[in-house]
Amino acid sequence: MGPHPAVAAIRLAVRRVLNDILAEHGRPPGRPATDERSSSPLVLVACSGGADSMALASALAFEAPRAGLRAGGVTVDHGLQAGSDLRAAEVAARLRELGLDPVESVAVTVGRDGGPEAAARDARYAALDAAAERHRAAAVLLGHTRDDQAETVLLGLARGSGIRSLSGMAAVSGADGRYRRPFLRLDRQTARKACMVQSLPVWDDPHNVDPAYTRSRLRHEGLPALEKALGKGVVEALARTAQLSRDDADALDAWAGKAAAGVRDDDGRLECDALHDLPPAVRRRVLRRAAIEAGAPAGSLFARHIEEVDRLITGWRGQGAINLPGRVVARRQGGRLVIRQG
Amino acid sequence: MGPHPAVAAIRLAVRRVLNDILAEHGRPPGRPATDERSSSPLVLVACSGGADSMALASALAFEAPRAGLRAGGVTVDHGLQAGSDLRAAEVAARLRELGLDPVESVAVTVGRDGGPEAAARDARYAALDAAAERHRAAAVLLGHTRDDQAETVLLGLARGSGIRSLSGMAAVSGADGRYRRPFLRLDRQTARKACMVQSLPVWDDPHNVDPAYTRSRLRHEGLPALEKALGKGVVEALARTAQLSRDDADALDAWAGKAAAGVRDDDGRLECDALHDLPPAVRRRVLRRAAIEAGAPAGSLFARHIEEVDRLITGWRGQGAINLPGRVVARRQGGRLVIRQG
Repeated sequence: MGPHPAVAAIRLAVRRVLNDILAEHGRPPGRPATDERSSSPLVLVACSGGADSMALASALAFEAPRAGLRAGGVTVDHGLQAGSDLRAAEVAARLRELGLDPVESVAVTVGRDGGPEAAARDARYAALDAAAERHRAAAVLLGHTRDDQAETVLLGLARGSGIRSLSGMAAVSGADGRYRRPFLRLDRQTARKACMVQSLPVWDDPHNVDPAYTRSRLRHEGLPALEKALGKGVVEALARTAQLSRDDADALDAWAGKAAAGVRDDDGRLECDALHDLPPAVRRRVLRRAAIEAGAPAGSLFARHIEEVDRLITGWRGQGAINLPGRVVARRQGGRLVIRQG
Repeated sequence: MGPHPAVAAIRLAVRRVLNDILAEHGRPPGRPATDERSSSPLVLVACSGGADSMALASALAFEAPRAGLRAGGVTVDHGLQAGSDLRAAEVAARLRELGLDPVESVAVTVGRDGGPEAAARDARYAALDAAAERHRAAAVLLGHTRDDQAETVLLGLARGSGIRSLSGMAAVSGADGRYRRPFLRLDRQTARKACMVQSLPVWDDPHNVDPAYTRSRLRHEGLPALEKALGKGVVEALARTAQLSRDDADALDAWAGKAAAGVRDDDGRLECDALHDLPPAVRRRVLRRAAIEAGAPAGSLFARHIEEVDRLITGWRGQGAINLPGRVVARRQGGRLVIRQG
């Protein structure tokens, strides 16, 4: 008798990603290992102790040895709740019980930049990056599911800043594609079920049900209401939208990259006539790149800023200079657009 | 004392659109009209009697004569509720009271194709098209607001079929840009307020609060829950997403149109190597176009169909022919992709 369908599903998802990692990092075939333990690539799992990442850890523990890979785990203690250090130690112990080695619990200090969720995320990824480098890991697996992806798309939608913010989380991201998300097409329910049938204890982060957090409100109120109105396929539709939007945004960015070179004169200034001939979607991306290159912080540069600069091209009636974030100024001089700091 | 801000807002929105129409359809300047009444272009408003379209009708009645345009109105009796004919007659009477002329009430028969909402919409636009042609109208104004646009984006999101379905309703659409939506950046509350302060009686369509209709569930449950989770800016963010997605989709369609010509051999077959070199977003659009040109009905062609055809290019391992809707078959023959019916 094979494993429970939920367990089979999580293992298959991990196996596929391990195969990708092997193809990229594996020992050249035919070269025998003198020291199997240290020479085979290490894959780490980032585990909070929640159902998604515990399921991921269990699948990694099962699949890694069969793929000739070493498997380890990292849990991050955010220090945001009393007793979080004890809980992190407990999660680490569970990861060791699964046979992962090395296993680390890393304590971080969460700052305040960008709000509580962003600050916790920044601290977590810094710790994971450091752990990956310390152990020379080939990859770090993250337990984000299709449901997390749907939530991320809705959060991006609320920014209203275009299709890049609809493209959610990538299956492969970070330096050298370090982070992998094997469960991005798997639903949360399957991960939870896989933990249950494997008798894995899971820890439910109280933040996940705390209505002070946007994502928590979205998960427990926003998305269920949307499903009630639009039908059960919403989560899958949002996840598919993420993938399609990502590909579209990549293609348009590539186009804008090429177009940017073509609209500059010999002094590197942007030619208004050439800009005018570009499709609006490409022109706005060229303008956005130029503003960022001139020193405007990408995070503070909104659609309305770019629209205003765009009107220097498409609705020219002698407007004055336009102030952008980061003390960047855009002005039209003759037939040229000049975007620079100061 | 000027008009109430809500009335000023609806008039400004209409005035802008009338100026566009005049620029496109107006009498050549300097040519005197011999018969003012019949020679100035006619603009119709489509009016259900609800707040949005009554506000639109009132603004058109005010602005059209000042712009040298004639203004008329059409109300469509869908025949879906008892007494709908009387109500349509009442709406027509109100439009005449506003000074619109000609005013028509048109009865239609709603079929069943595509569900109740789609069938009613099809019947309504057919009647509006016919009325526009009968009266040689330069344009037909529609009362869709920013809130309608937000709902349309969410409905598109639920399809999960990419950014074209996120692009909502266009400000200008239909044959020769017949349909105009002056209120697409105006919120529903402003339209309602404008009716109130002008003492215009409005009729609330019971369908709008009937939970049997997807859009109604979205309006009264889905969107409010999303606003509660994500904040009050959601409607505006969704509307902005629509505009950005529309521009992006247009640019990518243009790219795909050019790319499609470049990947064909002398016999018009698609070259797999050339397809492989395109960005995924462009390649999928080229494949979709080719399938539609071969006879696949656009509405039945889903993302998963195109993904499967795409794997003939990106994941070739000797797969057989792929069946698409409309008896269209895609197969790889040598280095060529052949997509045809039968």
